[in-house]
Amino acid sequence: MPEKVLIFSRFSKTLMARIGQRYELMDSAGKPPHEVFAPEELSKVRVLITAGGSPLGASALDSLPSLRAIICYGTGYDGVDLAAARARKISVGHSPGANAAAVADLALTLMLAVTRRLVPADAFVRDGSWAKALPSPMLRAPPGNPGRRIGVYGMGEIGRKIAARLAGFETEVGYFSRSKHEVPYRYFPTLEALAEWCSVLMIAVRASADTHHAVNAAILQKLGGDGYVINIARGSVIDQAALVAALTDNTIAGAGLDVFEKEPQAPGALTALPNVVLTPHVGGHTVEAHIAMQDCVIANLEAFFAGKPLVYPVN
Amino acid sequence: MPEKVLIFSRFSKTLMARIGQRYELMDSAGKPPHEVFAPEELSKVRVLITAGGSPLGASALDSLPSLRAIICYGTGYDGVDLAAARARKISVGHSPGANAAAVADLALTLMLAVTRRLVPADAFVRDGSWAKALPSPMLRAPPGNPGRRIGVYGMGEIGRKIAARLAGFETEVGYFSRSKHEVPYRYFPTLEALAEWCSVLMIAVRASADTHHAVNAAILQKLGGDGYVINIARGSVIDQAALVAALTDNTIAGAGLDVFEKEPQAPGALTALPNVVLTPHVGGHTVEAHIAMQDCVIANLEAFFAGKPLVYPVN
Repeated sequence: MPEKVLIFSRFSKTLMARIGQRYELMDSAGKPPHEVFAPEELSKVRVLITAGGSPLGASALDSLPSLRAIICYGTGYDGVDLAAARARKISVGHSPGANAAAVADLALTLMLAVTRRLVPADAFVRDGSWAKALPSPMLRAPPGNPGRRIGVYGMGEIGRKIAARLAGFETEVGYFSRSKHEVPYRYFPTLEALAEWCSVLMIAVRASADTHHAVNAAILQKLGGDGYVINIARGSVIDQAALVAALTDNTIAGAGLDVFEKEPQAPGALTALPNVVLTPHVGGHTVEAHIAMQDCVIANLEAFFAGKPLVYPVN
Repeated sequence: MPEKVLIFSRFSKTLMARIGQRYELMDSAGKPPHEVFAPEELSKVRVLITAGGSPLGASALDSLPSLRAIICYGTGYDGVDLAAARARKISVGHSPGANAAAVADLALTLMLAVTRRLVPADAFVRDGSWAKALPSPMLRAPPGNPGRRIGVYGMGEIGRKIAARLAGFETEVGYFSRSKHEVPYRYFPTLEALAEWCSVLMIAVRASADTHHAVNAAILQKLGGDGYVINIARGSVIDQAALVAALTDNTIAGAGLDVFEKEPQAPGALTALPNVVLTPHVGGHTVEAHIAMQDCVIANLEAFFAGKPLVYPVN
């Protein structure tokens, strides 16, 4: 009889099929498990798979007394209450770096698209405005990349891949992270100093209590009127209300956002803006990234059921 | 009294202002000059400024018997009948490389946007489909960049800048041009061989009789079902009807197009497609690129009126 694995978040059928070939899935499809499964069934669950951003706290863990491993699909694990897991001797694993290239690629996609006004430009061609030579205030010549100062907030695997991609665009790259890294980019000791220096801020930092609302009204003010914010990390890193205000009154020029404070909600004040590009949390959503993340999940599950430590543990 | 300069194409007010500070502009605003100016006025014109893609042939030159210089705004000069100009001892100048970074940046923007389905993704967030968890067939996980084979057609200044940018994305880069260059990318001796090898074809070749409809149904067939075409060069390089057919029946996966066969027209069969990103010929449209192109025009004009050879002649 195959081992049982509780599926705590909603995943695509494709992903479920691959894991389902090896294990028996108890799929709560994004609902609280106690609404789907009987307490007796849940009491036997030893391992679960979750999206790292989904809230998974002490009360959920209390309904899973046999749980010994939480395996996050993806790099993030900010939804998991690590202290509560530790107190219950539950290991936590993830998929480090598996989606870094895909996420970094989307960061560049968002930056290039918003600075070159790609969405309004595409609409201008499609709706016939170009053929009619209509005025196009959104399509005034924007500043280009050569010489542009781009700040990367966070220098983990995704931040490094973003910086490596940016280098080809004749830009200057600086970064802020908790510590200085062995990378060929200028280090800034505070986020304030980075924002003062750069005009595009790429957010690639892990979500945590430390980084919650780190990008606030004061940081946006420092970015200034030719400034852009790109976020492919987590919505919680930005004070979203302050961002909407800064975008609305042109404190900054625009934003490219793959993540939001309350997903899958993007507030109407944001979706109504012409100077943003918005994507539905698809940073790690490529064929290869999904396969690599699945590989990490399966490696973690196999280790767990073999009684070994997780192959990709959260430190 | 300032020298007179005939403005043969339609340019923005910003551009006209800078050149107008130095010279008296005879602005035909994109209309045939003989509809705007009397034959006597035209008979005295010694120099004109044109967009390189605008048709400028023998009959127009015959109405300008004193013309001695044609100065193209931008890199291209494919609209100018070079043989007719030569026969009349008219010099032709342009703005080589001035917009190369801006055009290369747009090429990457289009490639990243179309391969990551950016326009449908943005619409999916804005129209509330994401919040409602509606099905999103356009947003199935696409292949990512690492390991992708990208072919660059043309290895001039723009092709080189495209290739340099691509290198950061963990891709393999190959190219075809008339001759092999000293560049660190794999050379293919024919466009057919390049299209057979790559899955993304970036068109960065100069428009000419040689390259007219070079990207035809057979080339698109070789690119195949996971293939993309990106064109920031000239619309004439692609057989546009063949491209629309290939996009419609999924012979290729998608296209990113900044240029079209008959600008500013993009046919309805193209604008109705979900698997394309379309921009209104804005490749060189950044603040810095315009300044650099203006600098070239002014340097050419100053040399001309000083009785010297053009600083940036077309060879």
